[in-house]
Amino acid sequence: MPLLVQKYGGTSVGDPERIRAVADHVARTRRSGVDVVVVVSAMGRTTDDLIRLADEVSANQPAREFDMLVSSGERISMALLCMALADLGVEAASFTGSQAGIITDTNHTRAKIVEIRADRLREALAAGKVPVVAGFQGVSTARDVTTLGRGGSDTTAVALAAVLGADACEIYTDVTGVFSADPRVVPDAHRLPRISFDEMLEMAATGGRVLMLRSVEFARNHHVPLHVRSSFTWEPGTWVVEEDESMEQAVVTAVTHDASEAKVTVTDVPDRPGVAARLFRALADRSVNVDMIVQNTSQHGTTDISFTVPKVDLATSVSVCEDLRGELGVADVVADEDVARVSLVGAGMKSHPGVTATMFETLAKEGINIDMISTSTIRISCMVRAGEVEKGVRALHEAFELS
Amino acid sequence: MPLLVQKYGGTSVGDPERIRAVADHVARTRRSGVDVVVVVSAMGRTTDDLIRLADEVSANQPAREFDMLVSSGERISMALLCMALADLGVEAASFTGSQAGIITDTNHTRAKIVEIRADRLREALAAGKVPVVAGFQGVSTARDVTTLGRGGSDTTAVALAAVLGADACEIYTDVTGVFSADPRVVPDAHRLPRISFDEMLEMAATGGRVLMLRSVEFARNHHVPLHVRSSFTWEPGTWVVEEDESMEQAVVTAVTHDASEAKVTVTDVPDRPGVAARLFRALADRSVNVDMIVQNTSQHGTTDISFTVPKVDLATSVSVCEDLRGELGVADVVADEDVARVSLVGAGMKSHPGVTATMFETLAKEGINIDMISTSTIRISCMVRAGEVEKGVRALHEAFELS
Repeated sequence: MPLLVQKYGGTSVGDPERIRAVADHVARTRRSGVDVVVVVSAMGRTTDDLIRLADEVSANQPAREFDMLVSSGERISMALLCMALADLGVEAASFTGSQAGIITDTNHTRAKIVEIRADRLREALAAGKVPVVAGFQGVSTARDVTTLGRGGSDTTAVALAAVLGADACEIYTDVTGVFSADPRVVPDAHRLPRISFDEMLEMAATGGRVLMLRSVEFARNHHVPLHVRSSFTWEPGTWVVEEDESMEQAVVTAVTHDASEAKVTVTDVPDRPGVAARLFRALADRSVNVDMIVQNTSQHGTTDISFTVPKVDLATSVSVCEDLRGELGVADVVADEDVARVSLVGAGMKSHPGVTATMFETLAKEGINIDMISTSTIRISCMVRAGEVEKGVRALHEAFELS
Repeated sequence: MPLLVQKYGGTSVGDPERIRAVADHVARTRRSGVDVVVVVSAMGRTTDDLIRLADEVSANQPAREFDMLVSSGERISMALLCMALADLGVEAASFTGSQAGIITDTNHTRAKIVEIRADRLREALAAGKVPVVAGFQGVSTARDVTTLGRGGSDTTAVALAAVLGADACEIYTDVTGVFSADPRVVPDAHRLPRISFDEMLEMAATGGRVLMLRSVEFARNHHVPLHVRSSFTWEPGTWVVEEDESMEQAVVTAVTHDASEAKVTVTDVPDRPGVAARLFRALADRSVNVDMIVQNTSQHGTTDISFTVPKVDLATSVSVCEDLRGELGVADVVADEDVARVSLVGAGMKSHPGVTATMFETLAKEGINIDMISTSTIRISCMVRAGEVEKGVRALHEAFELS
């Protein structure tokens, strides 16, 4: 019997009516002769509400207790879904992360799965039941409840699909799939029926908010086909699969954008070995996730280094740079929040060197100045003024005929 | 170092401010040189809200999933309390029923504790931490989450106090202790500083709503002194302890009342062996909890049997009786919801045979007719018209000089 893992996000199980709709879809899938393992997130804003409650109670939130707190939301949604399934005559059984055998390391709030002991899930499947598993959570090697960080439920679903040898992992969400650009910015953006893991990874990394990077990486590494689709329309969505020779490779698949980062520039840094290493080690030690890095060619023995960081880490980053000022001989530290990034993603880019030129021409024609540039084999990103990024997305979407 | 188990009910941890107040009290207790294990209920109406949610989702609520659902509330309150303790510099660690080693049978929604493997709690205490344990829940021998039924958090606290050899179990609630009558009915009812387990049991069984029967039984059987007190005023409350020769035994300790039961009478039942057994076995098979039973002396070879049941079980009880009508030769089945019970409780009653007469005289003087009577060595209960019960409570409270 084929096996599907179906993951339902917070909006998909946001209220009793939605939970019954999800139960109905699970029941229909089951009756079509497919084994199903369900992974659920917490209902709607439950997790945010719990975090707000914690902030009201205490300024001091031990990570172990934070995980105990925020992991309670999935217990509610999974128990309710099992009840809704019972109403439809489908035998189901809920499993916490611990009961599902999801063993993690002890890094609370961003734990990594180290092993899955799926015996209880296999037993439930063999008994003809639908296992409903709490997403986002596991139990650590020290027997404490852990959570997997942002997008953790997707990771749970993909990991279970891998370990159970599922035929696919369906990610149900509130959008109908992955689009050629953000439809709020580009109204005639179209849904992509099929993209490669590499493209999805680049999109996730540059602002395509549908899937978190980590779950896509996991799916790629474990060869789990993903199907991103809507739990509101139930129509087929976007398949994320391994790249295939026979796949028609669009030169550009999508335009993504992201305004969540800020730029930091340290000026007149001495151009000698070890300076950049010292700077970025110091940032890493403060857990700052640096994204783009640009260093200009040296002039008169000094150079400028610019890098982007999540806006939430901007203050920390600036203070790290200031602290190193004397040691590194930095002239100035400049923070710039008024930036945004626009990116082109496409597996066909590898063999089409003209894409970069077309991108720059298109932005220039719109009068958009490019601040920083970074590229991978299947992506080009330009940092521009924040106020101009949406205009750039629209122009690029049209220039590459994605509509 | 002395050890206290402190149990905080739902109103005691009803909002962030209350949680901080509880943390403050735990911290002060800890700093006075006492080891503390905390047991918490879910915040305020959390559990009721979850049950309502389940009713909106499904008419079919498998007990295993119900337990998974309603056990989530305690995880929230205990994690928040640990955070509030961290704010005060007190190291604490939360434990679910399962993590605390509370092993139960597999009777979901009303599981019984079969064993407590308190190793993790002992380790936490040895490490100088305050263990904060989720009340009301355990893990079954089949590794499923179970709940202990109404008043389950008290049972958790008493059971932990017994297994850890605590010096006392403090039950913090929203009243200042156990009273000589319900203060809403008798304004000058007074708080009892000290009562025996037997008295507390009789009071719990006849309408004293402060403690559930089961946790008092557990405390009596395991010799755990209870201290019922308020988490709002923090003043000393009522000690529930083993009866002591030296204890000054009031003849009557308290007047309790209860309007939650209904009366069923089956008339003209043949007075032969096995008839009552057949009737009450049939009721037990439908899980009806019969309380008082009165059978009159036989007249002309037939008799009437009256019994009381919780009002929620009235319909079931009547239908059981109707089903047996032909088999047992019952003339009529009469249901009466307009009844309430008033009871006198007092360990001194054993040696004061006049109490019953005084009780009857007092009720007669008020013009209150007695419907049914039942007695134990330390309790007398009279079933009266529902509308007259409060008048009876006041009259008895005065007659026995309890003010």
